[in-house]
Amino acid sequence: MLRIVLTFVSVGLLQSYPAQSEWSLAIHGGAGGVPKDLPAAEVQQIKDTLRKALDAGRQILSSGGTSVDAVEKAVRVMEDSGVLNAGRGAVLNHKGFAELDAAIMNGRDHKAGAVAALRHIANPVGLARLVMDRSPHVLMVAEGAEEFALEQGVALVPETYFVTERRRHDLEQEIASEHKSLTQNNLPWHPVGTVGAVALDEKGDLAAATSTGGLTNKHFGRVGDSPLIGAGTYAENGVCAISATGAGEVFIRYTAAADTCARVRYRKESIDSAAKEVIALLKAAGGDGGMIAMDASGHVAMPYSSQTMLRGEVSSRSQAHIVVETVEP
Amino acid sequence: MLRIVLTFVSVGLLQSYPAQSEWSLAIHGGAGGVPKDLPAAEVQQIKDTLRKALDAGRQILSSGGTSVDAVEKAVRVMEDSGVLNAGRGAVLNHKGFAELDAAIMNGRDHKAGAVAALRHIANPVGLARLVMDRSPHVLMVAEGAEEFALEQGVALVPETYFVTERRRHDLEQEIASEHKSLTQNNLPWHPVGTVGAVALDEKGDLAAATSTGGLTNKHFGRVGDSPLIGAGTYAENGVCAISATGAGEVFIRYTAAADTCARVRYRKESIDSAAKEVIALLKAAGGDGGMIAMDASGHVAMPYSSQTMLRGEVSSRSQAHIVVETVEP
Repeated sequence: MLRIVLTFVSVGLLQSYPAQSEWSLAIHGGAGGVPKDLPAAEVQQIKDTLRKALDAGRQILSSGGTSVDAVEKAVRVMEDSGVLNAGRGAVLNHKGFAELDAAIMNGRDHKAGAVAALRHIANPVGLARLVMDRSPHVLMVAEGAEEFALEQGVALVPETYFVTERRRHDLEQEIASEHKSLTQNNLPWHPVGTVGAVALDEKGDLAAATSTGGLTNKHFGRVGDSPLIGAGTYAENGVCAISATGAGEVFIRYTAAADTCARVRYRKESIDSAAKEVIALLKAAGGDGGMIAMDASGHVAMPYSSQTMLRGEVSSRSQAHIVVETVEP
Repeated sequence: MLRIVLTFVSVGLLQSYPAQSEWSLAIHGGAGGVPKDLPAAEVQQIKDTLRKALDAGRQILSSGGTSVDAVEKAVRVMEDSGVLNAGRGAVLNHKGFAELDAAIMNGRDHKAGAVAALRHIANPVGLARLVMDRSPHVLMVAEGAEEFALEQGVALVPETYFVTERRRHDLEQEIASEHKSLTQNNLPWHPVGTVGAVALDEKGDLAAATSTGGLTNKHFGRVGDSPLIGAGTYAENGVCAISATGAGEVFIRYTAAADTCARVRYRKESIDSAAKEVIALLKAAGGDGGMIAMDASGHVAMPYSSQTMLRGEVSSRSQAHIVVETVEP
């Protein structure tokens, strides 16, 4: 039903705007997929969340809004869902509380904002946006970032806001198997639903945003690739917009997003080829995951080396489409 | 006197090792320079520190040690000096305490460790090394990173350990002019002595390390480019090793280190050309600063857009050489 509505809207847009006013949006709900044993109601919630996130971004882009507003809004919807690894529903660290990372970048002017190791911010991507718009800085972390939030009028929420039964269970399982997971070469990484969005707006501006709770059972204070510009998040007009998901440590060490864009910028590779090659390179280095990557024309590549990746896309040329596949738990 | 000794050692090495066993080390003590009004004794301390850092790294490299050991040691010497913006002597944030960032990267295997927003760690680069060697993570921040330090047997030091009269004075001056400095387009940035090192060892392995207190009067929780892989620090065998210094926010937004290396890797630019072009690009974007950049053969480029940059180099082919220039305060 929802799909039919979206199709109708897309066709309407194709008629209203000339070619140079195309817009495009892609989102991901994380590398990995939906565990086969997840209750049907929760699978439905995940599907509904991806559809709602796409629709929220679509509404902004199709009415002439900016790509940076669209990616922020789409990510906020996913942060609020309670069923993805970002905002409410984020995974828990070794100490049992959520620590949240996010970034947003505007490809028009290379401006960026990012936050990491937050414990009391419901919408990390919103705070990243405030860092970008209202501070001279790019990255703020931990208690200092939350102090900035309060200065900006953002209310804090208790740590319990983020905790779900599912994530408590994930942590217990992970700690039970800790003897084999907390070593250098065996990252305690189970791909679960980092979220992100990339977009092109009618003016031709690219943007990207990513938000995550990181790894289940991560060390207190660990920061992954999501909030790091050029690792998990990057946008540059005329070149690319990227949001990654996966084994964050490997994505950092190989500057995943920056390398993908450098291949497009310097080697004139297509976004499909560049993104695919980088994901293969990361896999060879021991890091499974995926990314959504958009080129200057709004074309989207969504390569992944994990079993699958929760994802969706919609544009002025195509109807909304989501992919939610189940995997062995 | 010291210079003569170093020359002697270098010549000795040239005779002892064949061409494929060349080693090379470069360090920086930050973009900017020594304020003209700095007491002569402190200027001498800065010179002595750079010489001592070079010598410590040289001893490791000339006796067959690794580049990663050499850059860590050189940076530790600078962190301990009390006269550069890293470790003891780091600048103070708006709240009046130091928050320290550092990173280290091994070009042989792309392994990296980084720490940010530390308040009680005397040698941030040493903790970054422990994150790389003894954790499955790359970046740890704030309280969680200090918890990791304690787990690893690293003693904490009081906040007062870092504070010097000079930095207290810098902060007072900065706060007095805050009305004009804390805006998006007017970064409260005075170039003062971030430190870093890059090295090539006899085995052909590159490494890089950077350590800093960041910006005087920065917001509590602000993290700059130094600890971010691909922004202020990066190393990749066969391509480059980079340590940057300057207006960190701009270096992050343009992935300064990753872009420099991408130009070498994909466009086959020389390290001189790549580093120079990136520093020019950052300047055009509003970010003054500099970097030390080493190519696979140990050749060093040291471009800067600031008035000068404190720097030094030594290699199996050349004697130790430092540059410490004064600038208008």
